[in-house]
Amino acid sequence: MAETVFKLNNPSLPVVKKRSQKAGLPPGTPVLTEDDTEPSKITILDYDSKDFTEIKPKSIDECIAYMKRKKSVTWINVDGLQDISMLQKLCEEFGIHPLVLEDILSTDQRPKVESYDTYLYIVSRMLDIDGKKNQISSEQISIILTPTFVISIQEKKGDIFESIRNQIRTNKGKLRKTGPDFLAYSILDRIVDHYFLILEQLGERIEFMEEELVRSPSPKTLHQIHRMKRDMVLLRKSIWPMRELINGLDREGQSSSLLIKKGTAIYLRDLYDHTIQVIDTVETYRDIVSGMLDIYLSSISYRLNEIMKVLTIIGTIFIPLTFVTGLYGMNFRFMPELEHPFGYPLVLFLMMIMSFIMLIYFRRKKWI
Amino acid sequence: MAETVFKLNNPSLPVVKKRSQKAGLPPGTPVLTEDDTEPSKITILDYDSKDFTEIKPKSIDECIAYMKRKKSVTWINVDGLQDISMLQKLCEEFGIHPLVLEDILSTDQRPKVESYDTYLYIVSRMLDIDGKKNQISSEQISIILTPTFVISIQEKKGDIFESIRNQIRTNKGKLRKTGPDFLAYSILDRIVDHYFLILEQLGERIEFMEEELVRSPSPKTLHQIHRMKRDMVLLRKSIWPMRELINGLDREGQSSSLLIKKGTAIYLRDLYDHTIQVIDTVETYRDIVSGMLDIYLSSISYRLNEIMKVLTIIGTIFIPLTFVTGLYGMNFRFMPELEHPFGYPLVLFLMMIMSFIMLIYFRRKKWI
Amino acid sequence: MAETVFKLNNPSLPVVKKRSQKAGLPPGTPVLTEDDTEPSKITILDYDSKDFTEIKPKSIDECIAYMKRKKSVTWINVDGLQDISMLQKLCEEFGIHPLVLEDILSTDQRPKVESYDTYLYIVSRMLDIDGKKNQISSEQISIILTPTFVISIQEKKGDIFESIRNQIRTNKGKLRKTGPDFLAYSILDRIVDHYFLILEQLGERIEFMEEELVRSPSPKTLHQIHRMKRDMVLLRKSIWPMRELINGLDREGQSSSLLIKKGTAIYLRDLYDHTIQVIDTVETYRDIVSGMLDIYLSSISYRLNEIMKVLTIIGTIFIPLTFVTGLYGMNFRFMPELEHPFGYPLVLFLMMIMSFIMLIYFRRKKWI
Amino acid sequence: MAETVFKLNNPSLPVVKKRSQKAGLPPGTPVLTEDDTEPSKITILDYDSKDFTEIKPKSIDECIAYMKRKKSVTWINVDGLQDISMLQKLCEEFGIHPLVLEDILSTDQRPKVESYDTYLYIVSRMLDIDGKKNQISSEQISIILTPTFVISIQEKKGDIFESIRNQIRTNKGKLRKTGPDFLAYSILDRIVDHYFLILEQLGERIEFMEEELVRSPSPKTLHQIHRMKRDMVLLRKSIWPMRELINGLDREGQSSSLLIKKGTAIYLRDLYDHTIQVIDTVETYRDIVSGMLDIYLSSISYRLNEIMKVLTIIGTIFIPLTFVTGLYGMNFRFMPELEHPFGYPLVLFLMMIMSFIMLIYFRRKKWI
Amino acid sequence: MAETVFKLNNPSLPVVKKRSQKAGLPPGTPVLTEDDTEPSKITILDYDSKDFTEIKPKSIDECIAYMKRKKSVTWINVDGLQDISMLQKLCEEFGIHPLVLEDILSTDQRPKVESYDTYLYIVSRMLDIDGKKNQISSEQISIILTPTFVISIQEKKGDIFESIRNQIRTNKGKLRKTGPDFLAYSILDRIVDHYFLILEQLGERIEFMEEELVRSPSPKTLHQIHRMKRDMVLLRKSIWPMRELINGLDREGQSSSLLIKKGTAIYLRDLYDHTIQVIDTVETYRDIVSGMLDIYLSSISYRLNEIMKVLTIIGTIFIPLTFVTGLYGMNFRFMPELEHPFGYPLVLFLMMIMSFIMLIYFRRKKWI
Repeated sequence: MAETVFKLNNPSLPVVKKRSQKAGLPPGTPVLTEDDTEPSKITILDYDSKDFTEIKPKSIDECIAYMKRKKSVTWINVDGLQDISMLQKLCEEFGIHPLVLEDILSTDQRPKVESYDTYLYIVSRMLDIDGKKNQISSEQISIILTPTFVISIQEKKGDIFESIRNQIRTNKGKLRKTGPDFLAYSILDRIVDHYFLILEQLGERIEFMEEELVRSPSPKTLHQIHRMKRDMVLLRKSIWPMRELINGLDREGQSSSLLIKKGTAIYLRDLYDHTIQVIDTVETYRDIVSGMLDIYLSSISYRLNEIMKVLTIIGTIFIPLTFVTGLYGMNFRFMPELEHPFGYPLVLFLMMIMSFIMLIYFRRKKWI
Repeated sequence: MAETVFKLNNPSLPVVKKRSQKAGLPPGTPVLTEDDTEPSKITILDYDSKDFTEIKPKSIDECIAYMKRKKSVTWINVDGLQDISMLQKLCEEFGIHPLVLEDILSTDQRPKVESYDTYLYIVSRMLDIDGKKNQISSEQISIILTPTFVISIQEKKGDIFESIRNQIRTNKGKLRKTGPDFLAYSILDRIVDHYFLILEQLGERIEFMEEELVRSPSPKTLHQIHRMKRDMVLLRKSIWPMRELINGLDREGQSSSLLIKKGTAIYLRDLYDHTIQVIDTVETYRDIVSGMLDIYLSSISYRLNEIMKVLTIIGTIFIPLTFVTGLYGMNFRFMPELEHPFGYPLVLFLMMIMSFIMLIYFRRKKWI
Repeated sequence: MAETVFKLNNPSLPVVKKRSQKAGLPPGTPVLTEDDTEPSKITILDYDSKDFTEIKPKSIDECIAYMKRKKSVTWINVDGLQDISMLQKLCEEFGIHPLVLEDILSTDQRPKVESYDTYLYIVSRMLDIDGKKNQISSEQISIILTPTFVISIQEKKGDIFESIRNQIRTNKGKLRKTGPDFLAYSILDRIVDHYFLILEQLGERIEFMEEELVRSPSPKTLHQIHRMKRDMVLLRKSIWPMRELINGLDREGQSSSLLIKKGTAIYLRDLYDHTIQVIDTVETYRDIVSGMLDIYLSSISYRLNEIMKVLTIIGTIFIPLTFVTGLYGMNFRFMPELEHPFGYPLVLFLMMIMSFIMLIYFRRKKWI
Repeated sequence: MAETVFKLNNPSLPVVKKRSQKAGLPPGTPVLTEDDTEPSKITILDYDSKDFTEIKPKSIDECIAYMKRKKSVTWINVDGLQDISMLQKLCEEFGIHPLVLEDILSTDQRPKVESYDTYLYIVSRMLDIDGKKNQISSEQISIILTPTFVISIQEKKGDIFESIRNQIRTNKGKLRKTGPDFLAYSILDRIVDHYFLILEQLGERIEFMEEELVRSPSPKTLHQIHRMKRDMVLLRKSIWPMRELINGLDREGQSSSLLIKKGTAIYLRDLYDHTIQVIDTVETYRDIVSGMLDIYLSSISYRLNEIMKVLTIIGTIFIPLTFVTGLYGMNFRFMPELEHPFGYPLVLFLMMIMSFIMLIYFRRKKWI
Repeated sequence: MAETVFKLNNPSLPVVKKRSQKAGLPPGTPVLTEDDTEPSKITILDYDSKDFTEIKPKSIDECIAYMKRKKSVTWINVDGLQDISMLQKLCEEFGIHPLVLEDILSTDQRPKVESYDTYLYIVSRMLDIDGKKNQISSEQISIILTPTFVISIQEKKGDIFESIRNQIRTNKGKLRKTGPDFLAYSILDRIVDHYFLILEQLGERIEFMEEELVRSPSPKTLHQIHRMKRDMVLLRKSIWPMRELINGLDREGQSSSLLIKKGTAIYLRDLYDHTIQVIDTVETYRDIVSGMLDIYLSSISYRLNEIMKVLTIIGTIFIPLTFVTGLYGMNFRFMPELEHPFGYPLVLFLMMIMSFIMLIYFRRKKWI
């Protein structure tokens, strides 16, 4: 699968691996930093308030030809980045800057929005969690927003935008009545909404881990905490810049831009609130997970204490007693006590007294 | 109960649980994120400086009809979010944006203020503490402030605003002489005042925990500290945005808005000071609770030291002595010492000397 | 005594205790959050560059009557907050806002400055330390600065302003030649100067604790560190806002206000520098006290190591030896070694060799 | 080699060593803070969109003479700082401020950009990693950007700019079609791109260390973590200011400067994004490495627990049993049990019972 | 010596000790916070681009008389603060504000710059390190910069400005050709340059401590780390405000002030960079020293583990064996094993088997 996987069971770092092959090329040279080989797939959804068309053009030329005919809002979705020449042609045809194409293909971009003369370039990260394997995967979604169409370019096949397509097909909600800016907003909204799902699952896992921490702390729990902490670091890295991104779009909308209309601003502000809420929750989780490590360490220390207490109680009671038995186990010829008829019971009594003194001492120290 | 409970005895995370059912719906679709089923309840308090009326309309239509007749300040209070269609009708009637309704129903909103053309939408969080169960519960209070009326929408039944109602009924204080902005302020003031009560109870619990920490640190104390810490994280998350909220209202008041009058600004500044004070106290508590964990760990370490000292003193005194007794307990045929008449007393004397040396060594090390 | 005491020996939290009795009252209702019952005391000092009068009016009416006659700079000092009706009358007479009175009576205010049309309201905190009991106490000083007089309202009897009074009486310094703004500055200057005295005493205590930490770390030291840390948290909470306060006054002075004259600005800047210096020192102390906890933990760990080393050395030398003695203490009928004439000396020699090997091993490990 | 080496195996601090020899000299006196003695080397690359020349002048005079003839974009690259008089002449000839020369020669500069009337002075740091020895080395690259030429001055021989030279030679990319500002950008771009390579290698080392930490934590791992942490501190110190640097260049470009053209701004923004990405990754690594220390400590604590458990189980079972055997090893004349025919089997049975009780106790405590 | 010493071997806090004697005096009263009694010493250096004079006036009147005659740049240097009346006269003569004099005499000022109508008042801190005693000492240098002269007032005798004097005497560098602003810059430049020397020595000490930490961690190392940490806190407190100071001078220079000329601005910016570099290094050292404490704790924990392992291995092997020997050392009359001819060898064999099992168990646990 062509995705950066934050593996949980076998954690791997989000290193910028494929960058090395770009070293020394002129800036703007498109190099794919992924190694999937399945061909890219294009789907076009064209709509206005009255009508909609959905086609899957076979070639990029067919797509461009179609685009030139239509005047309504068009959503071009590209699945997969393998077909670089096709993407290059698409960009050239619509006047997209070569640096944008380079960014689309480098799938380790930070979420951001870049404002060009006639279009906005938006990079966002879609996160997904594989429930069984507990793996969080991250996919880069590039969005190009122009006054008449939206191009969305996904790093891997399969997405979470089916509900948006259904809204267009069934003409539910405001989508069909609004421009491409609302479509771009809808895509970002779906991505942020999906973060909540991931946080839900992480939250459940945290609760499960907390219970386990109380019941039976073990190095396994420790490593799960470590992984969770690392997941949090990575989640944060993906989600934090989204805030800035949406803020940037909002600013764009306020500066009487043609790209973002006034009516969309209120939705962007709502989306901004959601992002803040996601960030807040991630930070709260981080705090809780950090606290768990302290709990783990304290529990281990406490258990060590308990263990040592048992050893010490047994030791301090029996070591002196054993000394006494050793004493009268010596083979000296002249040991008057050994000959005495009450020697044995008296020694037994002495040892009982010694034990009692020890037990009283322990009770005072509150060890038993 | 339809409330997000920060359980103390069985801590549960503030996960955004019900969000998943919204996934994929067009933005602005009202979905209730709570599962209480008791019907919502409306109460109307209408007042000016001379008169006041209090009615409990049976239906939303009755309420709207009443509203259209009256010109004085009106406070519509909605208890419970179950009757979505009623809330929807209310919003439509008074021109409230669908996104606001969506926010009202999502009861995990961050406190905030949103400025619309003809009204302000305020989200705040009321906190409550159940003294017996030590549970902090949080309830979302939505306030819609227009030039002539205030709609307050509460997540669950039962509130802390009875004193405000009494001020209206008995015409005490400034409330009857002022507009809806002062009513909105009064509601927020009650909420913030209530935080102080919660901080009082938390403060008492912290003092109790500190004493227990000194008297007898145990894993129970540790888990209480952990829960307290988590409570603090959640409290902070609820209270911090209040500061920004009130600041936002103040700014609104300064920008010659019709919604917040000049005279109310001074009260908002006072409320702002109170919020800062609450935040300060929460931060101080956080610092103190954090310090308690260090104390716990240090205490455990110290006790381990004490335990080991006892074991070591006993061990280092008696292990060599036991060796000596073992020595003369051996059954070799030719052991001259055993035959000597003073062998036994000499060995006893030797062992006393050994013990003394050890005790002097321990005293030097300041162990006893 | 009517003061918030940060107890050191029996630490109590700065909870906002008396707030609960205010819950539900209309804003601006004066409620005293202290419970001292001694009556308040008024003193008036009236002066210009030529003359000065000092009177102690018996009633508030006498005071107001006096005020109306005089035109020179007047300093009204109120000691104690018990006589609420008197304060209420004073405020009404001079047009002070009810919210100000409420703040004066709530003695847990954060230091701040509030600008009203004809006066400035300043809240500051005076700290004092009781050398014997090691208790830091905090007192709220409210200052109302108008173009012709200064009202200072102290939470408890007894103050540190006697030197200011003497400067007025003896006409030393600039006080008699300047307006009420310089008087207000002088009061704040005394308060900040007094912080240095407290820091001196805390500094001495820190040095003492550091020595004790090196000499003999004990849980007592730990609890002293904890208390010191908490003191720091509270000091910081009191002193930090002073910075903002003085900055606020300075800004007021620059905005061509009638209340703060140009000539006073330079003194305010000087005061600001002193406050920064106090904050710096508090932060330095915090860092040092935090470091002490680490030292404590490390010392404990090191001592545990030392203890375990002793136990391990004794144990690993004597446990095997004791085994050997046990071996030849067995009562088997057929044990050839026991019969051998050199059995005993050989075993003794063997045990010496074993001890030597152990000692060499320990020396290699650098344990002895 | 004339480079500041952050040694990994034998860590050495980035102290500002050679500074002392400058103490007391007038500012602007050029003093070399390195001690390499190989002579400096100059290479000139002169190009426009049609043509390019590459010469290696033997003396600085030849270089200056050449410069005066040509009008196209010129890149003067100086390798090594040993020939101070040559650099001084170069600076004088092109009107470079003496302070700039001083900075060029002090090779511990922080990355920065300084704007002079006719030129920009840019200091950046090139990092390199020696794979075998795990050593990160840092080299200072000074860039002087004027409207017609770029002077790059490298601290040590050998660089990573060969690909830029090839782009000029083969006329690939935009370089030949643009001015000196794009050349300066290209140099910085290569430097930042190279950071990714270093991060890749560090990332691999972190993964390797994590595995080792799980498999077998040892003080060696600890020291590797410490070194890694220190590397991170130093990396951060080198890379953070790059962000500001590029931001500064961008600002320069926006202020209608002659030095940075409009068309380059978009490339600078792209470079800025890359820098942010590098910083993000460094911060993530720092977090992960910090977490590893906690894991190390927890693992050690857990292992100590495991060790103590074994000792305690063995001790608490056998110490009482040994006492019993000692008891019946005593040589009292009158011990009725010893005479009893079932004495021995009964004692054996008693000891078995004792062991069982202990084992049940341990199982309850979940120790076995 | 009249200097605030940050003692390393016997650390003493930077308490603001002498402040108490000022309590209650009118602001602007000059009180010396040091207790040296040697008389102050004045030296005058007067120069322009052509000539220079160096005199040591015997009295302040002689100094003032000289000043009034000359028009060239004059540097008045005062060594020691003991002669308060002389300083007072100097200040009065040149119209220096009493608050400035107060600040000059309070030798615990924070570095700062204060802008008055006709002069700038600069406070800076010179640090020095005594190599043998490892003591960092701090001295306050006050600089008064007017359009025609510079007064520098040093807290103690002996300085690091001899090289500046030599530059004036020998007419090297720009000093003689520039105004008093460049002289003030030169003094600050010397102070900041001197910080690098101190950092060098601290850096060497850190490296030495790191080696010791690896070789043999002991409480001595711990206390050295603690002292180093504290030194860092104090260094930081002295150096951080320098940044703001120089920034302030730079701003002054940009606001078309008569005091700082345009040409000096570029040198101030260079000085600013140096200060940042010093701060960066201090922060790096702080990070490294903090990390050392973690290393110390981890090393101690690891060693404890090693110690416990040895004890546990010895204990778990020999304690059961000793039990067996005890068993057959019992004196029961009827113990069939004792009579058996192969009893002894069989028991020896059994004990060997037991030891082997233990050793295999330890190898599995990777303890040996």
